[in-house]
Amino acid sequence: MSEPEVLVSFRPSGREAYVLPGTRLVEAAAEAGLVLEVPCGGEGICGKCRVIVSVGAAEPTAVERRWLSSEELDAGWRLACQSAVIGPTEVEIPPAQRTAAEHQILVHTESSVSASDDPPVRKRYLELPLPSRGDDRPDLLRLEQVLQAGPLKIDRSLLHELPCRLRQNEFRGTAVLAGDRLLDFEAGQTENDAFAVAFDIGTTTLAAVLIDLGTGSEWAVASQLNPQTRFGDDVLSRILHTRQNPDGLRQLQECVVEAADAMIGQLCHSSGIPRNRVYAVTFAGNTTMQQLLCGVDVKPLGEVPFTPAVGRGLAFSTRELGLQIHPRGIAYALPVIGGFVGGDTVGGILAVGLSDADGPSLLVDIGTNGEIVVQAGGKLMAASTAAGPAFEGARISCGMRGCNGAIEKVVADDHLRINVIGNVPPLGLCGSGLIDTAAELLRHGILTPQGRLLMPDELRAGVIPDLARRVIVAEGRASFLLASAEEAGHRRPITLTQRDLRELQLATGAIRAGIGILLRRAGLEPGDLQRVLIGGGFGNFIRRSNAQRIGLLPHAIEHRRIRYMGNTSLAGARLTALSQRMRHQAEELARRTEHIDLSTDAEFQQAFAEAMIFPEE
Amino acid sequence: MSEPEVLVSFRPSGREAYVLPGTRLVEAAAEAGLVLEVPCGGEGICGKCRVIVSVGAAEPTAVERRWLSSEELDAGWRLACQSAVIGPTEVEIPPAQRTAAEHQILVHTESSVSASDDPPVRKRYLELPLPSRGDDRPDLLRLEQVLQAGPLKIDRSLLHELPCRLRQNEFRGTAVLAGDRLLDFEAGQTENDAFAVAFDIGTTTLAAVLIDLGTGSEWAVASQLNPQTRFGDDVLSRILHTRQNPDGLRQLQECVVEAADAMIGQLCHSSGIPRNRVYAVTFAGNTTMQQLLCGVDVKPLGEVPFTPAVGRGLAFSTRELGLQIHPRGIAYALPVIGGFVGGDTVGGILAVGLSDADGPSLLVDIGTNGEIVVQAGGKLMAASTAAGPAFEGARISCGMRGCNGAIEKVVADDHLRINVIGNVPPLGLCGSGLIDTAAELLRHGILTPQGRLLMPDELRAGVIPDLARRVIVAEGRASFLLASAEEAGHRRPITLTQRDLRELQLATGAIRAGIGILLRRAGLEPGDLQRVLIGGGFGNFIRRSNAQRIGLLPHAIEHRRIRYMGNTSLAGARLTALSQRMRHQAEELARRTEHIDLSTDAEFQQAFAEAMIFPEE
Repeated sequence: MSEPEVLVSFRPSGREAYVLPGTRLVEAAAEAGLVLEVPCGGEGICGKCRVIVSVGAAEPTAVERRWLSSEELDAGWRLACQSAVIGPTEVEIPPAQRTAAEHQILVHTESSVSASDDPPVRKRYLELPLPSRGDDRPDLLRLEQVLQAGPLKIDRSLLHELPCRLRQNEFRGTAVLAGDRLLDFEAGQTENDAFAVAFDIGTTTLAAVLIDLGTGSEWAVASQLNPQTRFGDDVLSRILHTRQNPDGLRQLQECVVEAADAMIGQLCHSSGIPRNRVYAVTFAGNTTMQQLLCGVDVKPLGEVPFTPAVGRGLAFSTRELGLQIHPRGIAYALPVIGGFVGGDTVGGILAVGLSDADGPSLLVDIGTNGEIVVQAGGKLMAASTAAGPAFEGARISCGMRGCNGAIEKVVADDHLRINVIGNVPPLGLCGSGLIDTAAELLRHGILTPQGRLLMPDELRAGVIPDLARRVIVAEGRASFLLASAEEAGHRRPITLTQRDLRELQLATGAIRAGIGILLRRAGLEPGDLQRVLIGGGFGNFIRRSNAQRIGLLPHAIEHRRIRYMGNTSLAGARLTALSQRMRHQAEELARRTEHIDLSTDAEFQQAFAEAMIFPEE
Repeated sequence: MSEPEVLVSFRPSGREAYVLPGTRLVEAAAEAGLVLEVPCGGEGICGKCRVIVSVGAAEPTAVERRWLSSEELDAGWRLACQSAVIGPTEVEIPPAQRTAAEHQILVHTESSVSASDDPPVRKRYLELPLPSRGDDRPDLLRLEQVLQAGPLKIDRSLLHELPCRLRQNEFRGTAVLAGDRLLDFEAGQTENDAFAVAFDIGTTTLAAVLIDLGTGSEWAVASQLNPQTRFGDDVLSRILHTRQNPDGLRQLQECVVEAADAMIGQLCHSSGIPRNRVYAVTFAGNTTMQQLLCGVDVKPLGEVPFTPAVGRGLAFSTRELGLQIHPRGIAYALPVIGGFVGGDTVGGILAVGLSDADGPSLLVDIGTNGEIVVQAGGKLMAASTAAGPAFEGARISCGMRGCNGAIEKVVADDHLRINVIGNVPPLGLCGSGLIDTAAELLRHGILTPQGRLLMPDELRAGVIPDLARRVIVAEGRASFLLASAEEAGHRRPITLTQRDLRELQLATGAIRAGIGILLRRAGLEPGDLQRVLIGGGFGNFIRRSNAQRIGLLPHAIEHRRIRYMGNTSLAGARLTALSQRMRHQAEELARRTEHIDLSTDAEFQQAFAEAMIFPEE
C-alpha cells in the first residue's frame, strides 16, 4: 500500500511537492523542480546546502550539528542533503542557493534567473520626429536614425503596414528587433512584453518552456508524448516510415508541428500571454527529430554512413513552419554534431557547462536515444546509442511519462513503498520508478543478474513477505505487482513484466556500453571521472545508487560526483532562446565535438552484450 | 495619305524598320531599336557615325564626301547622320559602333552586350566526394567545402530536398547561388541556363526584358498597358483609390503582379525558356508604383510631405510576391530618391551614366510622371512633375502606346506625311507623333501659342491645302484629321482634338517648368548644358527640333547635345539584374541625389503657367 505523502513547499518560488516522510529536503526540492547546489553530492562533507526550514523542521542530525551553530539550528537552518521530511514542511531557499541555481540552467530553476544582455529578440520604445515639409525622409530611414541602427531588414508583410502603423500611433511605439531585422513596430510601450518558447523535441516526449526574454524567468512548462510515436517508437522506425510512404515525411512533420503549436497555445493560455507576444522559438532534438520537424528528408540517416543534411543551427521563420506566434517570429534549431548526435546533445553540453569542466567529465542524456559525451583535457567526444524508449515509459507495459500519477520512486525495506507524482493514485511507472524497481528486485534476489524474474516457487526463503506476495504469474511468466487494481483505483493493476525488464536491460546495456567505449577512446577509467552529469526527462530525480545497481552507471564512480541535471536538452534550448552568445557557443561546441559512430566500432557489440547483464552485488 | 514606307534592315543584329524615304539612317536604326553613337548629335561635324550601306546606298552628301574617301564611299561607307533612305536598304553596323552600343546600355541594344562578372545569381557545376564510413560530413557542409564558400544560407524548401537531390544525382550537379544563399542544386550541368527579367513599372506602361545572366544578351522584350489604369490614370488617383477602398491596395497590387507574371510567361514562351530557369527579377518604377507592386501602403504619398515608406532598394522573394519563376527566385526593387522620384529615375541616372558626365547635364524621363535630374559639378538634384499620361497616349482621344499601328512620326511640308510603326494601317497616335503634330501645327499657324486650334474659317490664307482640309469641326470645336476612317482602315478617323492639345500643354508645361526650376536651383542656364538625355517609352525616337518647337526642351540647347536614350528606367533595371555592383551604385546614387519637392517650390506654379504657352517661333 502506498504511504500517505506530505506537502513540502518552497519559498520564494512557491513550488510544492508531495513526498514520503523520510525524504531528504534536497530530493523534495528536486521533486518540486528546484535543483539545489550540493557541491559534495549530498555526503554531508561540505556544509553548503543550507536552507531554512520555517515549518516542520526535523531534529538536527549529527552532521548538521557539526556545520551549523545552535543559533542557526534554532532559527531553522538545516542542510538540505541531511534533513528529512517528517511532516508538512515549509522551506525557504536562501539567496545564495538561488544565485547558484541560475548557473545550473536547469529547466526547473528558480524564477529569478536573469535575462541575457544579448537576447535574439529585443524591444525598444521610440518616439520619432514627425514628417514635415522640411523633413520627408522615408519612414524606415526615420526609424533607423532614431534607433541609431544600420540598414534594417524588413519583411514585406511589415513594410506593407509600416506607414499606416506609424501614422496611427503618431510615430510612437515599440520597435521589435531580431539582429538587424525589424520584426514589428507595436503601438504603445511594450518593452516588457517579449517572450520565447524553448522546445526539447524528444523521440518520445516533447517538452517546452515559456520564458520572459526581459527577465529570463519561466512562466510555464508543458510536456506531452511526441505524436510521431504512432508512426514508430524510435528514430529508425520513423525513418523507415518516410522510406515506405511517399507522404511519410509530411505526416511526421505535420504531427510534431501541430503538437508544438498546441503546446505553445497551452503555455500562453496558462500564462495569460497572447501568442503574438512570443517572438522566438528554439528547438533541441536529435538529428532525426530536428530534420523531421523542419521537413528535411531523413532517408540518408537510415543508411550508412548516417549523414545529416546540415550541421550548423538553422534559423527560419515560424510562420513557414506553421507555428502561430508573432507573424514574423523566428525559429532556431540547434546545431548537430554528427550522425544521430544532434541539437539535444549540443544543448546539454552547453547547459551543463561540460566544455568548461575541470577534470574528465561525462554527460549522459538518457532518452529514447541515449547520448553520451566525454570531456577530457578540453576535448569533447560524443556518441549516440539506441536505448529505446523504456526510460520514458514507452514499450513498458504499465509505463508512462514522469507526470502526475507516475510511480517515480520505489523503496523496498520491510515492505514496498511507492511515491506517486502529484500525490494521486498511481497510473503507471516512469523511468526513475523503473530503475528503482529493478534495483530493489536485484537487491532482494527476485531478479537475476541475467534479467530473469524468478517464479514464485523459485524465490529463496527469507524474501520479505510483502515482496514475495507481489511476484505473480500471468500467462506462464512472472510479473511484479507494484499496485493492485484497488490500490491504483482503476480496473487494472500496475505490474512490471519480464518483457519490461528485457526492455530495461537493452536500454541500460546500450548506454552502459556507449559509456565504456567513449571512456576507452578517451583513455579514461570510470574512477577518473570528476563529474558525471545525468540528463533526461524521465522523472524528477534519479537515485544514483539504483542507477549504479542496475549497471546504468559504473560502480567505480563516487556518489558525490554524480548529479542529475534534469532535461539538459531543454535547458540548452532555453539558453539559446535567451542569448545570441549562447547560440554562437552552441555552434562552436557542435564544430568542436568529435562524433564517434558506435555502429562502426568493432568493440561496441561485445560491450553491449556484456552490459546487458546486471552487475552482481 | 500615308506614303509607302520602305524596309531598312541592319546586320549583324537582323533588326528591321519600315521608314519613310528621306529618313536618315541614324533615325531608321533607332526605329529598329539600335542606338548608334553620334558624338556630334548628327550635325555632320565629327564623321564618326560610319556604317556600310550594302544595298540601297544614296548618293553621298557633301558632308560625307568631306569625311569619307572615294574608296570608302564606293565600298558603301556612309555617315548614318547624313545618309537618307531612298529605297529598300541593307546596312551593316561596324564593330566599332557595336562596341559603342554596349556602353549606351539601352534596352534595345545589340545582342552582344557582355555579362557582368558579378551577377546576382551565379551557377557552378560541382562533383562532390561521396559519403563513406570515414566521411559522414553533413550534406550542406560537403557542398560548401567543394564550393569553397563560407556558411551558405539555405531555404527550408531546398533543404527538404537536398539530401534526396544529391543522392539521386550521385552528388553531381549545378549549384545556383545568390550571394551567400544556395537557391538550388540542379541535376546535370546547367551553368549556361540562367536568366533574369528586368521590369520598368510605369504608371501607364509596363515594359520587360528577358536577359541571359551568362552572356548579358536579350532574349525577348514585352510591354503592355499597366492594368492599374482602370483604377485611375495617374499616381494620385491610385493613391486615392487605396484611401477610398479598404481593398484598394490589394486590388492594385494584385493586378500589376498578375500582369508582370503574364509578361514573364510571354517572354519565356517566346524564347523557349522554362520559367524555372529565371532566377532573378528587378523592378524600376516611381515610388508609388514600386510601393503598390510590393503591396506597401501608399497613403502617406498622398499627403504632405509625401513620404516614401522606404528609401533603399528592397530585396524579397518572388514567390511571396506571386511571380512564377524559380521557386526560390529573388526580386529587387530599385532604391528611391524621395517623394515620387523613385527607382525609375535612379535606374535612369545609372543607365545613362549621368553622375559621371563631364559638364552640366540633364536627364528628362518623360512618362506619366516626368522626372528631371540635373547634374552639375558631380552634384545631383532630382524632381518629379505630374505630366499626365499624354506622352504615353493616355487621355488623348486617339492616343496609344508606341507599338505597332502607332503614328510615331508626322511631317508636314507640301502635304501631311505620317509614319506608322510596323508599316501597318494606323491605329492611333503615340507620344512622338503627338509632339510632331503639335509642332507642325504651330509651324503652319494652325495652332496658336496659347494652344488654341483655329477653326477652318480662322485659318490664314496660304495654309497648305492638305493641312487646311484636315482642320475639321466636331461638336463646335476644331480637330485635326491625321487619317480618315478610310486611311485608317477602320470605322473611326484618327484626329487630334482641342482637348488633346490641352493635355499636351499640361504635360509639356509641367516638364518644362520642372526643368526650369532645377536649372535655376543648380545656377545653370539652358545653354550651359553639355548633355540633355531624354528617356521614356513613348516612342522609338523623339525629334529634337519638334520637342523644342513645342517648348518641351529649351530652345537654347544645341541639337547635337540632345540625345534620346530610350527607356532609361528599364535600362537601369536591366543593369541591376546583371550586376551586384550596379545595385550598389544604384543605392549610392539614390542616397547622393537631392530630392527637390516642386510642390513646395514657390516659383513652380508661376513657371508652370508660363510653360503652358507654346514658344513663339
